[in-house]
Amino acid sequence: ESLKRQESTDPLDPYSGEPSRHPALQINSLKPFNAEPPASVLADSYITPSAIFFKRNHLPVPKVDPETYRLEIEGLPSGVVSVTLSELKSRFPKRTITATLQCAGNRRSEMNKVKQVKGLNWGIAAISNATWSGASLREVLLHYGFTPEVAINAKHIQFEGLDKDVTGAAYGASIPLNKALSEEGDVLLAYEMNGEDLPPDHGYPVRVVVPGVVGARNVKWLGRIVVSHEESKSHWQQNDYKGFSPGTDWDTVDFKSAPAIQELPIQSAITHPAEGSSVERGDEEVTIKGYAWSGGGREVVRVDVSVDGGNTWHVAKLYSSDLGQNPAPGRAWAWKLWEIDVPLPDGAQELEIVCKAVDNSYNTQPDTVGPIWNLRGVLSNAWHRVKVKVKDDQK
Amino acid sequence: ESLKRQESTDPLDPYSGEPSRHPALQINSLKPFNAEPPASVLADSYITPSAIFFKRNHLPVPKVDPETYRLEIEGLPSGVVSVTLSELKSRFPKRTITATLQCAGNRRSEMNKVKQVKGLNWGIAAISNATWSGASLREVLLHYGFTPEVAINAKHIQFEGLDKDVTGAAYGASIPLNKALSEEGDVLLAYEMNGEDLPPDHGYPVRVVVPGVVGARNVKWLGRIVVSHEESKSHWQQNDYKGFSPGTDWDTVDFKSAPAIQELPIQSAITHPAEGSSVERGDEEVTIKGYAWSGGGREVVRVDVSVDGGNTWHVAKLYSSDLGQNPAPGRAWAWKLWEIDVPLPDGAQELEIVCKAVDNSYNTQPDTVGPIWNLRGVLSNAWHRVKVKVKDDQK
Ligand SMILES: [Mo]
Ligand SMILES: [Mo]
Repeated sequence: ESLKRQESTDPLDPYSGEPSRHPALQINSLKPFNAEPPASVLADSYITPSAIFFKRNHLPVPKVDPETYRLEIEGLPSGVVSVTLSELKSRFPKRTITATLQCAGNRRSEMNKVKQVKGLNWGIAAISNATWSGASLREVLLHYGFTPEVAINAKHIQFEGLDKDVTGAAYGASIPLNKALSEEGDVLLAYEMNGEDLPPDHGYPVRVVVPGVVGARNVKWLGRIVVSHEESKSHWQQNDYKGFSPGTDWDTVDFKSAPAIQELPIQSAITHPAEGSSVERGDEEVTIKGYAWSGGGREVVRVDVSVDGGNTWHVAKLYSSDLGQNPAPGRAWAWKLWEIDVPLPDGAQELEIVCKAVDNSYNTQPDTVGPIWNLRGVLSNAWHRVKVKVKDDQK
Repeated sequence: ESLKRQESTDPLDPYSGEPSRHPALQINSLKPFNAEPPASVLADSYITPSAIFFKRNHLPVPKVDPETYRLEIEGLPSGVVSVTLSELKSRFPKRTITATLQCAGNRRSEMNKVKQVKGLNWGIAAISNATWSGASLREVLLHYGFTPEVAINAKHIQFEGLDKDVTGAAYGASIPLNKALSEEGDVLLAYEMNGEDLPPDHGYPVRVVVPGVVGARNVKWLGRIVVSHEESKSHWQQNDYKGFSPGTDWDTVDFKSAPAIQELPIQSAITHPAEGSSVERGDEEVTIKGYAWSGGGREVVRVDVSVDGGNTWHVAKLYSSDLGQNPAPGRAWAWKLWEIDVPLPDGAQELEIVCKAVDNSYNTQPDTVGPIWNLRGVLSNAWHRVKVKVKDDQK
């Protein structure tokens, strides 16, 4: 490890040990590394290949030696527990789920067009879908002494990463206890992504996967779990990743007044065709593709698509995994891809393609960005709109 | 009972035994009886008095003798169980929750203004809030022999009312098994509403209260529970109370293509001031009040209010019960009332007052009715809009 670090260009740079990345990624920030796949390929596969799965790092990628790695668990009657990687793998059954992760800032660039917000300028691809395998957090907590008596005082499960800032402060987040303890919560201490060891950018050797919950709580390079009466005190839990009214600005914002984002709202976007591209009038129809997902395990039940800006609507065909399994109620953790061929309206010069999804709570996306605009640019889930030219055929 | 029935005007009328009702109710249909309170009084009390709680009957109100009443439970290994009212009250702890019920058709009249739909023309008050007491359905099922082995085949809990149509077919509905069996589902076999026996219009002697779920599954005059592999075969489960795309009409609709409505989406409406009323310019501000609620136990965390049609937004103050208890995560079954004083914009002749709510999944209401219009007129939860005149003071 020390050799590798010395090979990098600047040993004083905390980012000198970063892994190499896929060249197709569209980079929003190099240090920390934040990047999304090209929207055009996002919906090509139901399972996003790990190499192009969106990367959202808050701090340098820590190098963790699997032999000396320890996961500490605090707040249980048994005192501090220290678990090795091989104990995590051998003591608990390996559980596998397919779950979509989405950054709170996905589609932030659309909010920036309304009015400047603070944050990385994500397009529509700060969302990806993978299979995750690991130990059940519920089973781990019960094994190390969690009892109903603990639940009387404990309300939150805090997670701390091994990634640290220059002052030594670690990335941190928390989730409500009932999500972690529920048999139907499916929270994993994951050590595999898409059937292989977690890649360094996705939390090697262990990350928590909290399906249905915003990416920011799915702490990578997991070093510590704390069963606590309180939410994480981290910046990201307390003073970031919260939603506000469009009328709230940086002078008036009170971060205590809003709950930390956990479950995300219904979302969908168009991955094909691209903004500004064109279709031939002679083709008579346009093929439109995209993704749809909802937080909290709510299943996407319909995607409506319009090519006239939302005046008339068509119902897209939904695709999920090849296995075609129906998710258990409240446990639809993975996205659906969708596709539809819509006839070109007579004489249209331009199409305003729009999509909106509906989940099984029948929540739907708001029509426009302005009224959900917020100073941090999170939760951007208005109808996605793509403009496309209709080219007349050459005579 | 027979005496009372003979007193009514037409003994052949299945509706001859209906109870008397509060004169303030605004009646949408007499037979069956469907009525809502005046919107102006709806938000006057956090707990809606039972007499003005919205009434949504599908069939005549059955007269049930509490002495001979039996609740039958089928589908358990023990065979058919028959439970008396006093057994239900004595064998199981009395559980109490505060829960808002909402008709799937609440605010349907706004959809009718876009294009005619099929159904009762509800205003904004087919929603009310009450305390409910009774036995926990979970505890009843476990007591009578529900085991994890039953859950391997069972996926739904069906409910059948004692209210019947002229062919003898009963009202029926079902909910997913996991809602009924979850400790956090809080499903009650309720025999009290607001501290008294259930009124006849609300299901005397026993109804099921499924908090967070559309009114239609909260079956009244409960006669039978069936633990089943299948959803209820009733008309209301299979061919009604489902949501469709605005492009779907009665010629193209396939009721099998949409899930039965269970959890309802985020909702809010303005109860004061009334449409078409006026405010004095000299008052300098306008007081706006309303309600907000979300299905699935999701808590309302913010209500945004605009007086300029949605260009600028103000955050309303939220009120819940006098006790001020915070609901457990995922168990916010009751609405919030809200209120705000907004300054009158300089020179405005008319205000377009708008509200939209946000729940703790950060789902929000869609901007407009048209794109969520559906042939059955359900799930009408677009921003609520009220127009009010600004009157210049007399010189
Ligand atoms: Mo994020
Ligand atoms: Mo209803």
